[in-house]
Amino acid sequence: MQFGANTFIWTSPFGTKDFGLLPRIKAMGFDLVEVAVEDFSLIDVPLLRKTLEDNGLSVAICGAFGPTRDISSDDPAIRSNGKKYIVDCIGLAGALDSTLVSGPLYSAVGKTRLVSADQKARERAWCVQNLREVGRVASDAGVTLGIEPLNRFETDMINLVEQAIALIHEVDHPTYKVHIDTFHANIEEKSIPDAIRVAGSLLGHFHACENDRGTPGTGHIDWTGIRDALRDIHYDGPFVIESFTPGAVEIAKAAAIWRPLAPSQDELAREGVGFLRALLT
Amino acid sequence: MQFGANTFIWTSPFGTKDFGLLPRIKAMGFDLVEVAVEDFSLIDVPLLRKTLEDNGLSVAICGAFGPTRDISSDDPAIRSNGKKYIVDCIGLAGALDSTLVSGPLYSAVGKTRLVSADQKARERAWCVQNLREVGRVASDAGVTLGIEPLNRFETDMINLVEQAIALIHEVDHPTYKVHIDTFHANIEEKSIPDAIRVAGSLLGHFHACENDRGTPGTGHIDWTGIRDALRDIHYDGPFVIESFTPGAVEIAKAAAIWRPLAPSQDELAREGVGFLRALLT
Repeated sequence: MQFGANTFIWTSPFGTKDFGLLPRIKAMGFDLVEVAVEDFSLIDVPLLRKTLEDNGLSVAICGAFGPTRDISSDDPAIRSNGKKYIVDCIGLAGALDSTLVSGPLYSAVGKTRLVSADQKARERAWCVQNLREVGRVASDAGVTLGIEPLNRFETDMINLVEQAIALIHEVDHPTYKVHIDTFHANIEEKSIPDAIRVAGSLLGHFHACENDRGTPGTGHIDWTGIRDALRDIHYDGPFVIESFTPGAVEIAKAAAIWRPLAPSQDELAREGVGFLRALLT
Repeated sequence: MQFGANTFIWTSPFGTKDFGLLPRIKAMGFDLVEVAVEDFSLIDVPLLRKTLEDNGLSVAICGAFGPTRDISSDDPAIRSNGKKYIVDCIGLAGALDSTLVSGPLYSAVGKTRLVSADQKARERAWCVQNLREVGRVASDAGVTLGIEPLNRFETDMINLVEQAIALIHEVDHPTYKVHIDTFHANIEEKSIPDAIRVAGSLLGHFHACENDRGTPGTGHIDWTGIRDALRDIHYDGPFVIESFTPGAVEIAKAAAIWRPLAPSQDELAREGVGFLRALLT
């Protein structure tokens, strides 16, 4: 099992200026960096690949779905932009020898409305068709796409693992997996271990976050129940800490971070990975 | 200890047309109704008082703080309207022989922004001054005011019990108590039992909600830990189930309810109060 850190812990938007993070992330005890991609133009891809290799780090790509990147939007330009963004993420994964692009691919973060059944069905149809199209691009590139349920305040579309599974069955393309994030699951699932078992072999990615997005192990997430469920389903994919730097306006707004969640972001990551590694290995 | 049900479980906005709920709530096993007040003009107060008495139900008042009822707003008209709303809630409590008005009195639900330290200090000063003024009105009426922390997606101001306590100490008026809601605390507190113990004798109101706002007892809230902490601090105030009817546009938006959270709202309330009563008595 690979332990990872998401770049949102320290920076937003991630770019070449932040590559100095990589040796620090390695030294803290991580095997993998999850690169949150907000703006491709900020990232020197060949240099990133070299820096990852130099530091012996694997990489996964985490999509950042703002309002203009929404494959289920009413607006064809926004749908098309959302599709292009996912395809570009797949391209970046390929260029970095990564096999995973994950996140709330189905909609824009923060899109929460009570809509009519007709509107819901229309958005769902766009979503399914676009996921099929990018699914083909991903499987041609050897990349898995993860569908991450978000909590009710961040999306009205996929809040539960069972909803992610239903979407994947509807899309019916083998490149899709479920991506569980414990921060969201803590709000939405009646039992996180049960949700892991329901995902079973479809589980492809895991965000290990404390209930308050602070240091894993300091809150009330049922980590031993989660460990037992992951063992039951023989999960051996990535195990990534995601939190968010306080003070970066865009990401604070998107993730609702109004206070520091640990004495420092380095401490959150270092103590978090120590706790998770002891738990799982 | 009195077990209560919030009217938001079934209806929004609550009014005279909903008074038929009261005998049903009593028959389900509740001692108390928490009236969520969105629009005073919809409520026939003398008839409500008589219906409560006829059914042997106590009553508490739950404030609904939309964007125009915000005592920490930049806009003096909105601050004044927020203060008038709290004073009117205190008046309603008096007219119904209730001794409790509770909720996120300090701000508007859904007001989440990353603001400057200066702006934060300004809003805080307005809030404290207005809480002092309505605190005097409340204590003259024999009414306690509860300060409810909300989760990060509903407010940027008071997310933690310790933040509510700090605000109460700053206001420095004996009418204020802390109001813990387990749905919010599940997201924000590292340990809900610890938060209860920190509140101690300042705890004045309690919303007992499952982590997904479904039927209490069906999710992963640590109910036995909560019971033990409530016993430790000798809490004997109200214990109220709050959830929200799916399908009412305004409240679905405010509370982010996109799916039914139980087979029916009656089942949520009836099975919830059965579970909580067995837990606590």
